[in-house]
Parts: sequence; C-alpha cells; structure tokens
Amino acid sequence: MKYCEMSPEQLAAERASLQSRYDELKAMGLKLNMARGVLSAEQLELTHGMLNILSTKEDCFAEAGTDCRNYGILDGLPEMKKIFADMLEVTTDCVIVGGNASLNLMYDTVARNMLYGTEDVKEPWAGKKIKFLCPVPGYDRHFAICESLGIEMINVPLNSDGPDMDMVEELVSKDDSIKGMWCVPKYANPTGDVYSDRVITRLASMKPAAKDFRIMWDNAYIVHSLYGEPAKQLNILDEVKKYGNDNMVYVFASTSKISFPGAGVAVMASSPQNIAAIKKVMTVQTIGHDKLNQLRHVRYFGSMDGIAEQMKRHAAIIAPKFRLVDRIFTERLGGLEIASWTKPEGGYFISLDVPEGCATKVYNMMSDLGVTLTPAGATYPYRRDPKDANLRIAPTFPPLDELEQACEALCLCVKIAAIDKHLA
Amino acid sequence: MKYCEMSPEQLAAERASLQSRYDELKAMGLKLNMARGVLSAEQLELTHGMLNILSTKEDCFAEAGTDCRNYGILDGLPEMKKIFADMLEVTTDCVIVGGNASLNLMYDTVARNMLYGTEDVKEPWAGKKIKFLCPVPGYDRHFAICESLGIEMINVPLNSDGPDMDMVEELVSKDDSIKGMWCVPKYANPTGDVYSDRVITRLASMKPAAKDFRIMWDNAYIVHSLYGEPAKQLNILDEVKKYGNDNMVYVFASTSKISFPGAGVAVMASSPQNIAAIKKVMTVQTIGHDKLNQLRHVRYFGSMDGIAEQMKRHAAIIAPKFRLVDRIFTERLGGLEIASWTKPEGGYFISLDVPEGCATKVYNMMSDLGVTLTPAGATYPYRRDPKDANLRIAPTFPPLDELEQACEALCLCVKIAAIDKHLA
Repeated sequence: MKYCEMSPEQLAAERASLQSRYDELKAMGLKLNMARGVLSAEQLELTHGMLNILSTKEDCFAEAGTDCRNYGILDGLPEMKKIFADMLEVTTDCVIVGGNASLNLMYDTVARNMLYGTEDVKEPWAGKKIKFLCPVPGYDRHFAICESLGIEMINVPLNSDGPDMDMVEELVSKDDSIKGMWCVPKYANPTGDVYSDRVITRLASMKPAAKDFRIMWDNAYIVHSLYGEPAKQLNILDEVKKYGNDNMVYVFASTSKISFPGAGVAVMASSPQNIAAIKKVMTVQTIGHDKLNQLRHVRYFGSMDGIAEQMKRHAAIIAPKFRLVDRIFTERLGGLEIASWTKPEGGYFISLDVPEGCATKVYNMMSDLGVTLTPAGATYPYRRDPKDANLRIAPTFPPLDELEQACEALCLCVKIAAIDKHLA
Repeated sequence: MKYCEMSPEQLAAERASLQSRYDELKAMGLKLNMARGVLSAEQLELTHGMLNILSTKEDCFAEAGTDCRNYGILDGLPEMKKIFADMLEVTTDCVIVGGNASLNLMYDTVARNMLYGTEDVKEPWAGKKIKFLCPVPGYDRHFAICESLGIEMINVPLNSDGPDMDMVEELVSKDDSIKGMWCVPKYANPTGDVYSDRVITRLASMKPAAKDFRIMWDNAYIVHSLYGEPAKQLNILDEVKKYGNDNMVYVFASTSKISFPGAGVAVMASSPQNIAAIKKVMTVQTIGHDKLNQLRHVRYFGSMDGIAEQMKRHAAIIAPKFRLVDRIFTERLGGLEIASWTKPEGGYFISLDVPEGCATKVYNMMSDLGVTLTPAGATYPYRRDPKDANLRIAPTFPPLDELEQACEALCLCVKIAAIDKHLA
C-alpha cells in the first residue's frame, strides 16, 4: 500500500516497525562506504599483470627507441596516443596524454583559459564575470573546479537524453559571460544517462554569444558499459567541425577505472588548433608525464581491443552490483511512489530521488548507521540541491553482501524519511 | 702565448691552423648532445631494481594499509613524505608530494598565486604588473614560467656565494610589484655555485615591500654532490621563521636525477599555513598523484640513507665527466685569457664564459659540427644574454669518449671566435 493511501494510524504503525529495524541495524555498528566511484578489490586484481610488466632495461624502450626512463616526450608516447585516439575515435594529432588524472587535465584547462584566454579570444577569463552551465544532477568535482576559480554556475536540467537543450541554447546564445559547460555524455555521473545524437548535434551546432565558449566533454565512462557493447554516440569533435565550432570542445578521459585509479593515465583531445595552444603552455609546465607508466599500459593492453576485453571483465564484476541495487530498490521501494532511481547501462553510479526535502535526512540517518553515502547536495553546484531530493549511489566498491546490507538500510531510511514528511 | 700578445700574423696563422682542424672535425659528421642535464644510460641502470619492485597484490599496500592502486591520498604517502622531509630537513607536515616533475609544482605554484593570491595578500596576481628577480646566469625553465605568465623578469648577478644581496635587498624593499625570486641554492644551474649561509640569512631576513613576496627555492640538486658529502647549508624554512617571514619560501625538489627523470617523484615544502592553502586548491585539481610510483621509491630507497647511497653511485659515474671537461678546458683554454668556467662540486652543469659577443657564434659553430649545446642566451631571461658570453655545459649524458670529442671541439670553436673578435 502507498503511504499516501495509509491512514495516520497505519503510517504510525509502519513508522514504529521501521524504527525498530533501524535500531537493530544501528546496534550492528556497520562500517560501509558507498560515497565514491571506487574500484573493488576484485577489479584491481584485473590489472595485476601490469605491475611488473617492465622488468628489464630493454622493456623500457618505446617503439621509436625512446628510453622511457629518461626525460622527454611532452604529450605522450605515440603508441599510448594511438590507443587513446582509437578509444576516443579521433586522430593521434588531436590527443594529449596527461598524468594520472583527467581531473588534473580538466582543472588545468579551465585554469589555462583563466590565465591565457583561448585561441578564439585571447583575453584571459581571470578577473571577469565568467559563468558555466552545469547539467544537474552532475559531478561534484566539476562543480568544485568552477567554485574554486570563482566561476558562477547555472543549473540546467539533465534529461534522460542529455541536457535540456532549449534552455542551453537560449542561455548560451544570449549571455556572452557564459564561457563553458560541463558534460558527461555517456553514462553520466550520477544518472547514467546517455546523451542522444540529437542532443549532441544541437550542442555541436550552437551559436554561443561568447566566441570563447567551451564544452568540457568529460567522457570518463566512454568504454564503461555494464551490459555488452558501449553505447554508440556521434563524435562531438567531428560534429563541431560541421558547424564551424572546431575549437569549442575539450574531450577528457582516463584509464582510472580501466587499470588503476591511483596510477592510471589520463588523456584529452581537441581541435589541432586547441592542442597546439595547450602544448605551448604545457611545455612550460612540464618536461613530460610519466612515460614508464604509459608504456606499462601500452604493453599490458596492447590496443583498444585489449581495453575492450578488460572492460568486459570489469562489467562481469560490477554489473551484478548494479542489478542487486535495482532489485532491492524495486522490492522495497517499488510502487510506494516515494522514490525513483535510474537504471544505468554503464558508468559508476545510480541516481536516487527521494521525496523533496528528504535527501539530507536520509544521508544523515545512513551516516548514523555507519554507512557513508555521497553527501546530499553533492550532485548540485555549491552543494545545494534545490529540492534536497537527490542521492548518488556508488555500488562498485563494497562486496555484494555488504552492498545488500547497505541498500536494505538505505530503503529503510528512505521509507522513514518519507513517512515523517507525510506525518509532518 | 695569449692571443692579446700575438702579432696579427701570428693570429692569422693560428686561425688557419684552427680552421683546418675545424674542417677535419666537420668532415667527421659528429652527432653529440650536451644540451640538457640528462642522465646517462649507465646512471639509469642504477635504478634498475625499482622497475618491478611491486609485483604482488600485497606489495601494493602502504604502511597504513592504503591500497596504492586505488584512489586517495592527496598529498603523498606518509612514508614518501618522511623520506622527502628527511632530505629537505623539515617535518612531514610541511611537505606535499607531487607527480613526476618539480617543474609542474613550480608552475602550479606561480599559477596558483596568479589565480588566487597568497595567504598573506589574498589578491590574485593575474591582471597586475608582477615582477620576479632572476639571478643570472640561471635556469631557462624558471624564466619560461615567468615569460609564459607575463611576469617581468629582472636580472640580478649571481656571485659565487649566491645572488648579489645588496641589489636584491634594494629592489625588494622598494618595489611592491616584485612578488618573487628564483633561487637554485645548491649547485646552481648552470654555475654550480652554492649559496653561503650569510646570503641565506640575508634572503630570509628581507623586508619586502610586497607582503606577498615569495622565494621559489628550487633545491633540485640538494643531494647531488660530485665529491663526498653534499654541501651543508642553513635551512631556509627555519631561517625565515626567525624573521617573521614564515610564508615567504616555497621549496622544491624531486627524484628526477636520483631515480628516473621520466618517472620520478616531485616534492614541495613550505610553511604549514602555505601548505594548507595549497592543499585547498590541490584537492580541486586532483584526487591524488601516482601512489604506486611513490611506493616504488619508498621500497627501493627505504630511507634518506638509501638515497644518499644512490647519490654516491651517481657521483662515481658523472664526477669523471666533470673532471674531464675541466681538464680539457684547462689544457686548451687555460692561460689564454679568453674563457673562464666554473668548477662545480655538484649539480649537473658547468658555466662557461667566452669573450663578449662570442657565445652565439660558438653555439652556431658547434651546431655546424653536429654538437648540440644549450642555446646561447638560454641562461638569461628572455634568452637575452646582455654580453652574449655565457654557455651552459651539460656533461652528464655523453660517454667519456664522446664528451672528450665534444669538449675538444668546443675549445676549438672558442679559440676561433676569440681570434675573429680580436682581428675584427
């Protein structure tokens, strides 16, 4: 029976029953963490063979004879570029290989535009009123970059096929202080939504008022499908060319959730003109990133095919976790009309919406039980979810039995919060 | 006989004889590189055992139980911090471990102040007239950071005991647009000079007009002695505290010339207040640097003692190269009063001064022979050596026989240029 159909007495009885189960759980002293998109121990083992794949002196030489132990190679080993170019479906001249974190490439890209301006408008963004569009719910670390650099964020609803493009086009075409936009086009964080080709085409063909408008295309989950082949999408870098917007997009990805989160390799891609401008600054910033680690990845995966195989092994481990969460949510919350959640085909998260005003309460109740979730609000700029309704579920790290326990606890908390709201 | 004492006929004869040897050398088609401070093949082998030191899953856990394969640890593994803290003679709370390049830490530090200002003056440097003092001759990559960010550079003579402190104090106390200064305090690039304790005390006790004045203390060669124990110096971070200048210094170092230049670990140190401010931005920029590579270094070196042992092995390989250069310079150029050069006790370079107006000519003559030197002018801001007299010699990379060949050629070119100047 839905809560809205229950009598106050029925609700009070249900509330009491839920509370006693909550108290039981609390007495167990759980210690579970579902806060972030972290690889499980089992997943980390998938890349075991990479650890000592370079052993001899001879192992350390790349194809062109480069000794990867020494200085040199600003923008990545050619063979590492090739794998990433295949992954991103671009040519190698559009690719820059970074250090171990695409986040660092993203921060540096925004910071670079703050300090130097862009190829299209050579005026630094620093010192000016700058705004970015942020599809919501979204990724807290994107928002943190803007907040840190004093960039004002504007929420745009993220629909199941991508950002609300009517709103995006309207805003971008009228306000030349809107200089950028964050996008996670495939298996978005946290909803798992996949941008449709129609949305990608509309993004690529925009006519922004700001000539230096830039899309931060964080393709973090480009090959991270849970069930079968990754979703096919139009290539944004190809699309923008059709509309004379060649320099409008920076693409980012990494092997953090392919090999090792702490010791992977990051990549960015953009137009040749952007890449040249970026390298001009990058050559001042570094002599080159860790080539031995690039070579480990090249040797271990061999090619994009090797990465595709690896992703199937990851999926075999984490898909059951996504299924488990969906099953428990369906069993415990289905039909109650108090919660809705996404059913991602890839990525690392599930987005859960609870009754308005209840997300913080659910988060706090879970914390009291010993289960750490991503904080309520984190999926919105400035940590302000206007409805206080969205929670990000990260099911990959805990083993199945712990995940089940955490999800049961979560459903309990959602129900209690929903009844309390009803009774209030 | 000195050239200045020769008759025009004697000079012409000497010139002809030198030219014929030059032509012989040119016909040999040399291909030698002494441009940069690169480790030789033999030196790279010293760190061979680090390559596969992490092999099993268990190997990947740090002391505190951290799985170094996964996300986390913003500012470095505690055991890596400990080694660097011992190296820099500071406490671990003053240390941030970076990626593979101290250059990147330096760039980011200046860029951070451009974007956010400092702890002492929270106004960004971006958009303002900013100047840095540059002891000359100095390191081209320091100058490149300033040039890239639009920071005006002011030359200050580097004496054998450090920068000309009368000039530094005068400038810094009067001009509040002077926000920084580059220093390589031990075995300076390119002279090998070691700052005296008196100079360090004067630097530490300055009263800059700019409250946000910062010293970039690039201690790249802190343990890189050629003959015996590294030079002892006052610790700048201790000294500044005595004068209330706690936040005035950022210290940088790395293992680039200890382990692998392409895959080392970088570090910075500063006051706890600066470190806290840096981490606040850094946490937006990255989730953490490569912990597996930090762990490789920790396991391979064990402690600062292990690093000291490694440095003796490096010295055993490169000290003979420094001796060779000095011997050939002495034999070929000694007493001619056309050149002077430094005799470093550590570091990676020798600074050679040729007659005024001759450095570019010598560089070009060497290029024509097939020997690549660091370009003339590189040791000065904006690549402008006002006397066109300084050349940086990097003797570490070539094997001894090639180095000898290159040095013989260099002396030949210096003599020809000197005679031509004399005859002009």
